[in-house]
Amino acid sequence: MPRHLTHELRNLLDRGRDRQLRLAVTGLSRAGKTAFLTSLVNQLRHAGIDARLDLLKSAREERLLGAQRISQPDLGIPRFPYDEAIASLESTPPRWPEPTRGISELRLQLRYKTRRVRGLLGDTATLTLDLIDYPGEWLLDLPLLEHDFLSWSESQLRRTGPERQQHAEAWRTAVARHRPDEEVDESRLAELADLYATSLRRAREAGFSHLQPGRFLLPGDLQGAPVLQFFPLPGVGEPDRQALEALPAHSLYQTLKKRFRFYQQHVVKPFYREHFRRFDRQIVLVDVLGALNAGPERFEDLSDALATLMRSFDYGKRSLINRLFSPRIDRLAIAATKADHVTPDQHANLVALLESLLAEPIKDLRYADVPVRAFSLASIRATETREIETDGQRQPALRGHGLDGEPLLLYPGDVPDRLPENEFWQRQGFDFTAFRPVPCRSQALPHIRMDAALEWLMGDKLR
Amino acid sequence: MPRHLTHELRNLLDRGRDRQLRLAVTGLSRAGKTAFLTSLVNQLRHAGIDARLDLLKSAREERLLGAQRISQPDLGIPRFPYDEAIASLESTPPRWPEPTRGISELRLQLRYKTRRVRGLLGDTATLTLDLIDYPGEWLLDLPLLEHDFLSWSESQLRRTGPERQQHAEAWRTAVARHRPDEEVDESRLAELADLYATSLRRAREAGFSHLQPGRFLLPGDLQGAPVLQFFPLPGVGEPDRQALEALPAHSLYQTLKKRFRFYQQHVVKPFYREHFRRFDRQIVLVDVLGALNAGPERFEDLSDALATLMRSFDYGKRSLINRLFSPRIDRLAIAATKADHVTPDQHANLVALLESLLAEPIKDLRYADVPVRAFSLASIRATETREIETDGQRQPALRGHGLDGEPLLLYPGDVPDRLPENEFWQRQGFDFTAFRPVPCRSQALPHIRMDAALEWLMGDKLR
Repeated sequence: MPRHLTHELRNLLDRGRDRQLRLAVTGLSRAGKTAFLTSLVNQLRHAGIDARLDLLKSAREERLLGAQRISQPDLGIPRFPYDEAIASLESTPPRWPEPTRGISELRLQLRYKTRRVRGLLGDTATLTLDLIDYPGEWLLDLPLLEHDFLSWSESQLRRTGPERQQHAEAWRTAVARHRPDEEVDESRLAELADLYATSLRRAREAGFSHLQPGRFLLPGDLQGAPVLQFFPLPGVGEPDRQALEALPAHSLYQTLKKRFRFYQQHVVKPFYREHFRRFDRQIVLVDVLGALNAGPERFEDLSDALATLMRSFDYGKRSLINRLFSPRIDRLAIAATKADHVTPDQHANLVALLESLLAEPIKDLRYADVPVRAFSLASIRATETREIETDGQRQPALRGHGLDGEPLLLYPGDVPDRLPENEFWQRQGFDFTAFRPVPCRSQALPHIRMDAALEWLMGDKLR
Repeated sequence: MPRHLTHELRNLLDRGRDRQLRLAVTGLSRAGKTAFLTSLVNQLRHAGIDARLDLLKSAREERLLGAQRISQPDLGIPRFPYDEAIASLESTPPRWPEPTRGISELRLQLRYKTRRVRGLLGDTATLTLDLIDYPGEWLLDLPLLEHDFLSWSESQLRRTGPERQQHAEAWRTAVARHRPDEEVDESRLAELADLYATSLRRAREAGFSHLQPGRFLLPGDLQGAPVLQFFPLPGVGEPDRQALEALPAHSLYQTLKKRFRFYQQHVVKPFYREHFRRFDRQIVLVDVLGALNAGPERFEDLSDALATLMRSFDYGKRSLINRLFSPRIDRLAIAATKADHVTPDQHANLVALLESLLAEPIKDLRYADVPVRAFSLASIRATETREIETDGQRQPALRGHGLDGEPLLLYPGDVPDRLPENEFWQRQGFDFTAFRPVPCRSQALPHIRMDAALEWLMGDKLR
């Protein structure tokens, strides 16, 4: 049988049965996960009605018939709160949906007509699409698995820049009063751990991203459990290993070490084993514009965080993730969100900047043969493009409403097409303004390039 | 070897090694679990210093040397927030501690002198005491395991009295619009489930206790998960079983049935299997006075709830709990809390009332040979006893401060010594007033009969 025929035959057979795709959405907090997932569900529900999905081939060819929400398979995982998100967007004035905390999922059933094959008419087929939303912060914990407590402790203390140091000042002063061989009582340990968690929370509020351990920021039911009460130990390192390992079980060092191990085994690994391993496709959302607005230390920190986060997708044979969990994600999208917050002439630069921000991880992925594509998109478009005249020159501008409802018409500035140099930061050339969503009543949500991202992530399953 | 010698020899051997006791504390919400556990830890920490523990033999004999908090064994369980509780009590003005939500634990190490045996001097020995606090509401879910969805649904709908009905009105109207064979979409199901959970919450706020399923009220990380989105189905019952079972998988009936089963397997059973089975001793706290104050419908409801709750301690060979989990609790205390809210002359009645409230369960326990004793106690005494003169007669009264700080001197009324009859409710003879805690600075907390309860629950382990 000639090769192309085998291929087509397999396609035909494939179409005969229902197929399934598990698509995961992640990003660090405020990257726009909730808006993306809300828009994704909304676009698919409105496909063939009023959604604008020209870049999604099945929609353009009018083969996508509709999408219905059905019961999710795992009854113990919170459902993604789509209705609540839509209710926020449709309220008066419209509000951005509440961010999700932790993992959630939603199952859609898509119906579509298959493409004609050699003159045969396409049949109606079904694709079951599982959408999973989870915090990117959880992926920052992967490298913790290649450490033991001592090496992790050193790595954490090396990392902090001058401003991050400042947020951790109270914790540093307190922990300096204790020696690793000391027996520290439970309540004092809880206090120290609380100071450490507070320093992470402060750093996050100040716009930093590279924060570990991830669950310290979103503890859920583990709030108050000893597994979330450890911290790095300043003043000791590799040369002290032998002496530290000889300490008794109740010493500060051994107590922290035990909790660190418990965190690895009972918090980090279960997520990868029970969820991550089962994802087929993944999109990683990045708020590049927010970081650009926040200055060089935070931008650098985001870059670090993303490099760490992307390690979960490096499927090179010898990579950590592959050795531990044999995941199966076979296609990846990375997307700079909130593209509607710059003028369209800047979108190409936004993609280029995202690609340079992720240059190293992307190289690793390509080497490991994981297909990856970068996008700029707006999940829910909040602005319109206008032209204004300044100094006799016509220039594009954005029109929309600020979060306080004030009408705005502005040009936020140029996006650099590569990692910004000192000069850029000195000019302070970029002014990110938050817009509120536009009113929409039961219509398809306006977007930028959601259809392109969908085509990349699931187009091949809708043939 | 004569029998008493064997016994003493075993005791001596026992003392040689460290021993362990897992003591669990439960009660329905507002029964006073947090105050009890806080006081328990506080009394043991102050034993031999300023705690008044005359009814605890080892303390009276000055053999109890002290108690220290040490690391708990399960790092994934929240630690009981003892320090936070003490901080509340020591704040100005003093406040009752925040109630706990879910399970928490704390480990104490007690050091004591063993009793002299035949002229030998006692040695110093150690008892490791694990204290576990968990919501009594979780025990209300046990009977759910002997039902399938249909019989559970019937049992729930049978139960509601006139006032409970009223709280469930919105849910009843909504669910009446759907047929069991209908395919109800996810968002509508979520709405109906939300109305059901709201009816339970309203009933609880109105003072009702017998509420099921327990996790609907304290969802934690399961918030928004389908496993917490089911409800009874009015209008169908046993005679319809065959027709219902034949319905397709996506029908309302089958969907609810599936979730109910998931709740049994993944929510109810794990608590019994992973926690309950390992408890050695148990105290059940009951706010009898609060219920007495709330009128006949709520008192009746509490009585029902307690009968259900106590089934988890019925270790008769053929009992549900024994068949499923082979638990090992070998001694049980039941206690009417807040005894400081009535005058001391009423304490005997309070115990008698508690015993009649639990008459049937106590009979079952005695039959199953589980030692059980009833107490009245105040974990943290908030009042002092005074005498006042009314109509020329001297009468005991309580002095303390109301929650608003107002000084109070009052006689709350007589406690009936058996289940109150109509006449009692018509007289409205009981007036429960909440007092705020008395200021205490680093001293042992004042209490009533905590020492008696401790002697019953752990005295035999401190010989």
